Formats: sequence, C-alpha cells, structure tokens
Amino acid sequence: MSTESDAIDFWFDFISPYAYFASRKVNALASRHGRRVRWRPMLLGVSVMKTMGLRPLMETPLKADYVIRDVQRTARRDGVDIGRKLGRPPMNPLPAARALAWLDTHRRELAAPFAAIVFDRYWRLARELDQAEELRSALTDAGLDPADAELALARSPGAELLQASVAASLALGVFGSPFLVIDGEPFWGHDRLDEADQWLARGGW
Amino acid sequence: MSTESDAIDFWFDFISPYAYFASRKVNALASRHGRRVRWRPMLLGVSVMKTMGLRPLMETPLKADYVIRDVQRTARRDGVDIGRKLGRPPMNPLPAARALAWLDTHRRELAAPFAAIVFDRYWRLARELDQAEELRSALTDAGLDPADAELALARSPGAELLQASVAASLALGVFGSPFLVIDGEPFWGHDRLDEADQWLARGGW
Repeated sequence: MSTESDAIDFWFDFISPYAYFASRKVNALASRHGRRVRWRPMLLGVSVMKTMGLRPLMETPLKADYVIRDVQRTARRDGVDIGRKLGRPPMNPLPAARALAWLDTHRRELAAPFAAIVFDRYWRLARELDQAEELRSALTDAGLDPADAELALARSPGAELLQASVAASLALGVFGSPFLVIDGEPFWGHDRLDEADQWLARGGW
Repeated sequence: MSTESDAIDFWFDFISPYAYFASRKVNALASRHGRRVRWRPMLLGVSVMKTMGLRPLMETPLKADYVIRDVQRTARRDGVDIGRKLGRPPMNPLPAARALAWLDTHRRELAAPFAAIVFDRYWRLARELDQAEELRSALTDAGLDPADAELALARSPGAELLQASVAASLALGVFGSPFLVIDGEPFWGHDRLDEADQWLARGGW
C-alpha cells in the first residue's frame, strides 16, 4: 500500500500541451509500481522566463514551429484530440494553478480529477479555463462542494499557496513542464515517461 | 538496397553530449529499416544563440544542473564512459565541423568513422579535438590519406562548406543537437530515437 511519502511529484503548468499528454498517463505509470502521484502546480512564466532568462517557447524561432508539429504528431500517435489552436496565446494560468494549489493543501485527493477536467476542457474543447465560471464547474465536477469551491477560487490563500508551490519547484530544480520527481530523481518532459517507468522498475541505475 | 535519397539526416554538434550518445546508435537504427545515415554538421552557437536568441545550455540556471545529472544518468544506462568533466567549457567546434563538412562533400563514406573517432576522443578520452594534430590523426585513422587530410583541415573550403551546411540546417528548422530528419520529418533529441525508430517501422502516423 502506498503512503504519502511514496508519492511521485508531477509538476506541470496547464498551458503546456506536453503536460496534457503526460497527465493522461502519469497515474497509470505510478500505479504500475505501487505508487501514487501528487499533482503540483509550477509556472513556466516564472521558471523559464524569470529564472532561466529564456523567452517563451512559442516565441522562440525554429523551436515554435517544431513544437507545433511535434504536438500534432504526438496527439495523433496517442489518440488525443487537441481542439485548441496551437500557437494561440495561452490562457492566464494563474487562477487554475491557484485552485490546484488550494486542493493540494486541503483536498489533495481531488487534485487529479480537477486537473484532468481542466486539461480536457482547455486543450480538447478549447474553453477558457482562466474564467471563474469555468473553474467553478471544474471544481464541483471534480467533487468539491460549492462552498469549498469558492474558497479554492478566492485569491487568498490560493495565491500564497501557489507562490509556495512555485518556490518549491524552483528549489527542487524543476524548470519545465511536465516534470517528474521520483525519490529526488528528476525527469523532464513527456518524452521521459518511459525512462521514469524503467527507473521505477529497476530501482534506478 | 538503400540509395542516397534514402539517407536519414543526422545533424549534430560535436560539443553536444547527447549527440555523442546518439552517434553510437544512429547507424544501427537506420540499418534496421534499410536506410543509411548522412552525418551532417550544425552549430549550436549559430542555431541556439544567434538564431533562437537563447543562452548556452550550460549557462542556463536550473537546466545546466539538470543536464549534468541527466548526462551522467544516460551514460550509466547506456554503458558509455564520459571522461570529460561536464560543465567544463567546450572546445571550439569549428575545426572538427569544417572537416566533417569537407568529408560530407568529398568522402562521405568516411564521415561516420571520422565523427565516431572525434566523439570518442573528445567525450571519453577528454582530448582537445579542436587541435590540428588531433584532427589530422582522427582523419587518417578514419581512412583518409594524409594529403587529403590536409585539404580537409584547410580553412578553405572547409569554412564555406560548413557555412552552407549550417545554413541548410537552419532552413530545415534544425535547432538542436542531435536532430534527425527522416523524409522531411524532424526528431529533436537523443530521447526521440525510439520515436524515430517507430516512425520508420510504421511509415509514420
């Protein structure tokens, strides 16, 4: 039986399509090894732009074109429907990330279903998940009662909880999305899920 | 039987440890599908720094630490010996890249053995492959006669050939190292070799 300390940390930003792909696989990956997943918000705007001093992916010449093609290719391979136009400016990720930070603190068992709903509605249905009404229904559809949903949506303490989460991500060296940390071992990117799987199976190398 | 137009383009910069890992696998990967590999020089200094406007990987906070750890982890997994201290400033990649550009034009069948020797001596033995004496022995050990080795080492036409190769890489959207282009389809990174293998096996998706 898995315990809290066994949890694999799954760090992500909702605006990352690679995090969407990974979100559909990470619970099964952990379960294969008797582990659980802790779904944790980070912000690419803080890690990549402010801390690393890089420009946003979709504003980077050459790489932006590659990413659009690669995301479409990955979606075809994985049978994932991406309804959102790639290259379109992302939503403001803060409200959803704040709500996730609140759930991580107060109702951690609802973090995964909430994140799955947000990812699905944002990436597949191209809805605007930075809107309070959208987030409210995502929270209640995930199983939160309406009164708690208002608490999760409030600017405070969500903003402080998110700030702490982002600080924790940077302290752990998390700089991209998705990013797995397994017993302290970092795995950056959707394309490293297989490696993380092997790492868990073999107990490292 | 494979023809010239069948070739898979393997773009790389010698200073990339991930290109070293990939260089040990790429010929076998192509052979499994009846294909050959064309070993082509690109320059991270031009693609990443000048064109994309990014700072060098090893000067990027968070990512530099991750890359050191990830390269060591990959080396252990693949049974590759990295004798060069990671994070140490790279050699000047231009002389080796110019020689490779010369071989690609004049003695293409020697490009792969030459590159394998350069990678091995640079990464495993931590030797300085920007030195003329080192490159001369790498060229002759690869099978080039000494007179041709002098031509391959001359600043001209190597510099012009390399410039054309780098321009071609940018025109194709190649921005990282290693980078495979298979029938126009781009695959960036050592961690995408498996995907390229599947792509070849399935004829795309």
